[in-house]
Amino acid sequence: MPIATPVAWLDPSGIRLLDQTLLPGEERYLELQTIEEVAEAIGSLRVRGAPLIGIVAAMAVATAGQGDGGAAGLERVRWAVTRLAATRPTAVNLHWALRRMERRAEAAVRGGEGLGAALRAEAQAIWDEDRAMCDRIGELGAGLVPSGATVCTICNAGVLATGGIGTALAPVYTLQRTGRAPRVVVPETRPLLQGSRLTAWELTRAGVECTLITDGMVASRLRQGDVGCVLVGADRIARNGDVANKIGTYALALAARAHGVPLYVLAPTSTVDPATADGAAIPIEERPPDEVTGWRGRPTAPAGIAAWNPAFDVTPAELISAIVTDRGIVQPRDVAGTVD
Amino acid sequence: MPIATPVAWLDPSGIRLLDQTLLPGEERYLELQTIEEVAEAIGSLRVRGAPLIGIVAAMAVATAGQGDGGAAGLERVRWAVTRLAATRPTAVNLHWALRRMERRAEAAVRGGEGLGAALRAEAQAIWDEDRAMCDRIGELGAGLVPSGATVCTICNAGVLATGGIGTALAPVYTLQRTGRAPRVVVPETRPLLQGSRLTAWELTRAGVECTLITDGMVASRLRQGDVGCVLVGADRIARNGDVANKIGTYALALAARAHGVPLYVLAPTSTVDPATADGAAIPIEERPPDEVTGWRGRPTAPAGIAAWNPAFDVTPAELISAIVTDRGIVQPRDVAGTVD
Repeated sequence: MPIATPVAWLDPSGIRLLDQTLLPGEERYLELQTIEEVAEAIGSLRVRGAPLIGIVAAMAVATAGQGDGGAAGLERVRWAVTRLAATRPTAVNLHWALRRMERRAEAAVRGGEGLGAALRAEAQAIWDEDRAMCDRIGELGAGLVPSGATVCTICNAGVLATGGIGTALAPVYTLQRTGRAPRVVVPETRPLLQGSRLTAWELTRAGVECTLITDGMVASRLRQGDVGCVLVGADRIARNGDVANKIGTYALALAARAHGVPLYVLAPTSTVDPATADGAAIPIEERPPDEVTGWRGRPTAPAGIAAWNPAFDVTPAELISAIVTDRGIVQPRDVAGTVD
Repeated sequence: MPIATPVAWLDPSGIRLLDQTLLPGEERYLELQTIEEVAEAIGSLRVRGAPLIGIVAAMAVATAGQGDGGAAGLERVRWAVTRLAATRPTAVNLHWALRRMERRAEAAVRGGEGLGAALRAEAQAIWDEDRAMCDRIGELGAGLVPSGATVCTICNAGVLATGGIGTALAPVYTLQRTGRAPRVVVPETRPLLQGSRLTAWELTRAGVECTLITDGMVASRLRQGDVGCVLVGADRIARNGDVANKIGTYALALAARAHGVPLYVLAPTSTVDPATADGAAIPIEERPPDEVTGWRGRPTAPAGIAAWNPAFDVTPAELISAIVTDRGIVQPRDVAGTVD
C-alpha cells in the first residue's frame, strides 16, 4: 500500500505538508499560512516533485484568494502567482497550475463568484485530476513492465512527488495491488539524495522491495541484465519529446541505451509544454554550489572549491522508448499532439 | 606544484602515512608498525590508490623482513604477504608488489643476504620505479590533452594514489610545470567521495583549478563541449584491454563516447594483468552496504534498506581511446603486448 499524499488542507485556511528535507530521519509536518511560507517551502525543496509543487502552489493561491474578492482579491492572487512562479524555473506544472488558478480567479471576479470558494475548488480539482492521472499512468505503465523484472528509477517520482500514487512509481504501486510489485533499483540521486531519502523511504513504507545504489553505479547495474525497464518522471517535456528531469537521468538513459533496456518517461499531461521547442530551450535551474560541496551542512570537499549544480538535465527524445501520460503511451515525437 | 607523496619510512622501522579517510577536514598522519595495522589501513582505505597500496604493502613486507633472516624470516614475510593480499581483491598492483617482495625474500634467503636490507631496498625500488612511471605517464599523457581544454577525471588517481605525481592526474601536473595546467572537472565519486575529498584537495593544494560535480552530472557536463578529454586511472587492465577502475568510470566512458570525447586510461605497467583474459574475469570488490546508505556514520537512507556496493566497474576496451603506460600509448587490444 502506497503511503498517503504528504499534503492536506488546513481548516479554515492554510496547508499542512510533510517537510521532505528532513526525511528519512524525521517525519515533521509544517503548517503554512502565508504565500511567503509556501514559496520558501517550494524553493528549499520541503515540498518537491513537479506535479506536487503545482498542486501546493494552487492550494497556496486558493489561500490567497480568501477574504475580500473583487479587484483587491485579484490583486492578492496575482501577487501570489508572481511570487510562487519565481520559486523554481524548470518544472512546467508549477507554471501551468499558477496560470490556471489566475484564469479561474479572473473568471470568478468577472462573474461575481466568491473568490475563495472558487479557487479552493479549482485547486482541489487540480489535485483530484492529478490523482486520477497518476492512476491512469500506473495502469498504462504497468503493462510496460516485463513480468518478474526489476525496474530502475531515479530521484523521486512517487507519492511524495504527486497528488496520487506517483508517475514513475505509479506502475510499481499498480502492480503491487495484484501482488506483482517489481523490485526497484534506486539511485541515491546526489546532491539532495531524493532517491535514498524519499524513494527508498516511500517504497519501504509501502512494502516494496528496493535496492539502493549510488548514481555512478547505474551503468554497471544495468549491465547485470535483470533490470527490465527504466521508469523516470519529468519536470518538463518539450514539443520534440526531449525531457528535462532530475540530474542523472541523461546518464541513466545513455546506460539504458547501451544495454538495450527500454526507458519510459511517465508524467501527467501538465508536464508537456508545446511552447518549448526542444530540450535546449528548457531553462535548467542551477542550485547553490554548497549542495554539491557538502551534505546537511557538513563539507565533503575542501573549502572554497568551485562546483557546478544543475538540478536537472535533458534526455534527448531519441533515448526515450516511450512517454506515458494519462492520455496514452506515445513516441516522444508525438507527445505534443496529445495536449490541447 | 603537486603535494608530497603521503607516505614515508619511519626509522628504524614502520610506515608513516596520511589517513586519507579524514581528508579534507583533517590532515592526520598514522605511524604503523605491524602488518595488522597496515592491513587495516589498506582495508579501510586510509591508504588507497592501486599503485600506492602496492608500494605500502611492499614497505610493510620489508618491515616484516627485519630481524632474523633465514627460514624464520621467510615465514614472517610469507605470513605478511598472505595477510596483505587478503585486504583488497581488485587492484592487481597490490598482488604484483607482494609477489615481487616474496620472490626477493626467497632470493635473499637463498643467497644468504640480509633479509631486512634486501626487502627495504626492493620496496624502495618499487616506489622509485612507480615515481618514474608516473613522470613518464605524465609526459606521454600531456601530449594527449588538447591545448586550453578542460579535462575530466573520476575518483583519485593523483599524488594520493601513487608514489609520484599520479597516473590520471600526471599529465595535469606535467602541463602545470610549463604554466599550461588544464582546468579539471572532478566527479565527487560516491560512496566514499575520493573525488571531492581527495582529488579536489590535492589539486587545490597544487594550485590547479577544478570544478566539483556529482557523479550523476557527468554526462551533462560532457555535453557542455569544453571537456577535451577524460583521464582515468585503473585498478586492473585485462589482456583484452578491458579496464577495472572506480565505480562510475563505465558511466563516464559511455558519456564520453556519446559526446565524442576521447577517454584515456593512464596506469603503470604493473596494472596490466595478462593473466586475466577480460573484464568479466576481474574480481570486483563489494564493500559494505553502509557506505551507500550513509556518509560518515550518518544515515542517508531508511534503516534496513538493501544496497549494492561494488567498488569498481569494468569499462570495455571499445570505449577506451588509448591506454597510457610508462611504456607508451597503445590501443587497448595491444596492452598485453607491452608487458613482459
